[in-house]
Amino acid sequence: MNITQTFLFQEINQQPETISRLISEETTAIHSLVKAVRERQITHVVIAARGTSDNAARYANYLLGAVNRLCVALATPSLFSIYKQAPHIGNALVLGISQSGKSPDIVAVLTEARRQGALTAAITNFPRSDLGLAAEHVIDLHAGEERSVAATKTYTSELAAIALFSAALANDESMQTALKGAPQFIAQTLNMDAEIARIAERYRYMRACVVIGRGFNYATAFELALKIKELTYTVVEPYSSADFLHGPLAMIEPGFPIIVIAPQGVMLGEMLEFTRILNKRQAEVIAISDDQELLSHARIPLQLPVSVPEWLSPLVAIIPGQLFAMHLAAVRDLDPDHPRALHKVTETR
Amino acid sequence: MNITQTFLFQEINQQPETISRLISEETTAIHSLVKAVRERQITHVVIAARGTSDNAARYANYLLGAVNRLCVALATPSLFSIYKQAPHIGNALVLGISQSGKSPDIVAVLTEARRQGALTAAITNFPRSDLGLAAEHVIDLHAGEERSVAATKTYTSELAAIALFSAALANDESMQTALKGAPQFIAQTLNMDAEIARIAERYRYMRACVVIGRGFNYATAFELALKIKELTYTVVEPYSSADFLHGPLAMIEPGFPIIVIAPQGVMLGEMLEFTRILNKRQAEVIAISDDQELLSHARIPLQLPVSVPEWLSPLVAIIPGQLFAMHLAAVRDLDPDHPRALHKVTETR
Repeated sequence: MNITQTFLFQEINQQPETISRLISEETTAIHSLVKAVRERQITHVVIAARGTSDNAARYANYLLGAVNRLCVALATPSLFSIYKQAPHIGNALVLGISQSGKSPDIVAVLTEARRQGALTAAITNFPRSDLGLAAEHVIDLHAGEERSVAATKTYTSELAAIALFSAALANDESMQTALKGAPQFIAQTLNMDAEIARIAERYRYMRACVVIGRGFNYATAFELALKIKELTYTVVEPYSSADFLHGPLAMIEPGFPIIVIAPQGVMLGEMLEFTRILNKRQAEVIAISDDQELLSHARIPLQLPVSVPEWLSPLVAIIPGQLFAMHLAAVRDLDPDHPRALHKVTETR
Repeated sequence: MNITQTFLFQEINQQPETISRLISEETTAIHSLVKAVRERQITHVVIAARGTSDNAARYANYLLGAVNRLCVALATPSLFSIYKQAPHIGNALVLGISQSGKSPDIVAVLTEARRQGALTAAITNFPRSDLGLAAEHVIDLHAGEERSVAATKTYTSELAAIALFSAALANDESMQTALKGAPQFIAQTLNMDAEIARIAERYRYMRACVVIGRGFNYATAFELALKIKELTYTVVEPYSSADFLHGPLAMIEPGFPIIVIAPQGVMLGEMLEFTRILNKRQAEVIAISDDQELLSHARIPLQLPVSVPEWLSPLVAIIPGQLFAMHLAAVRDLDPDHPRALHKVTETR
């Protein structure tokens, strides 16, 4: 297998241009959504999503909370689609996130929210999908067709769409400027490819691992874990460092592999302390960071070649994770484009 | 080791009396909270919790949504405790759930919520703890001291406290009557002990597994997974069936153990369909259910001896899970009362 000829490799490497396109083409749609949020004096946000898009929702949970001071809830789609006992949504923005826009449970949340009079918006790669049609506002990812089953470029585009919305709503020019740099930051981070290909060999026979991120990078931990699961069939558990200490820490035995996502920022101190606990338990720490001290505590340090504001770091920190999952699939002679049992579009009710 | 002499065994078996006590002693506190919720015309709920208590929060997410039509958000404590960028909470009930009432991150959410003028309540086994003192309203679990590190009786008491609040707020007498039967239902379910002790042998060398529940029993899946992790150091991933189909399904190979929690109710059809997918992939299905058809699809059927309304089923369906985790620890000669690396009180900031 020549990995460079897979859709997955190509799509991972398309991410700088995909995000550039999103930034240049969706300004109007985002401003129209911001205008509606302001006019209706929206007080909280409900997000419905599955899989990779649900991980983007986790990012929105923190970003809209920290920057826009919005209270964000992740929806419980089965209350809408199966139990038919939907909560009263109130004066909320209800956001559906889905690459395909097809999953009936996510569409059901948006349809009911609109019926109740909530403000609705969809972030999707298919504006003419059921989800796109169910929502009042649509942000088109403009990611081009994603042919690999495992989502990569649509994930970072979803993050970028959320960040564009947050920056516009906050009217924060420094955020907007930083976001324009994202394609370049991602391009530089893609240069970790050769190093990660080499390191993936070490994990040929890894059966299980844990991925840790907290705060803005809680989303990164979940998305990295999902990529490894989908592409390499490893059992991978994502956690916030705080949740991990409330019980799951017991699982760790000497040599247990734990990937720690810890770019510079307010959360770094917490991650340094957490890494010390892991070292005391003789875990094998794989660190994704741009901080020298944190990297020095890792058995396998994966140094991010760029330093960005913490709120933007999830767009960069997921890149080595995507590359790692891809190369680990290759090391195991698995097909990176067609994981067993999965299809590109998953429809759950 | 004589398992019956462990705190864990004793505390699991105390659950009927613990819940009886809660029901008889906390009526006044719950009615006072209900009165405040009504007077202040609360529109949404934010819940802060970690570990086992966070799983009780997942139950509240569904129960308060379905029965009381309240929009529920699980808090992002780090925005309060580490980033110091707390969202504007608005006219919400902010609920902290914690056995010890000590974790600083959870206390930080309640303190900030009260500062903002939100209605605050704590569900805790220690009303005089930091959490209890930070909240306007306190529901005391009355569970007695829990000496095993792994929480069992405080979990079902937290579920019962949430259900009592939901029933009182809905002014639903049939729910209140059903809840009074919970101690008896749990007592009957505890009779599965001998059967589960026998079955645990089969999983002596299980390294990883998945636990599935959706809707009301999403919480049960997470709590069962946490018990197995804490007590037996197995890597266990909990999922809703819908989330599992959006990627993680790829992990399943012939013989992969999957515990499916599927009591009778509206969600049963979904679980039947899901179990068929697992069988097609030759997974080893362990089913916890009171439905004959579902049990017939399982390699290892664990038949619940009682049938209860679906919203109440999490109080019953977790019992075989607690017993399974305990017996699996015994089968592996692990100390059920003192899992390695853990302490009874975990304080995260």
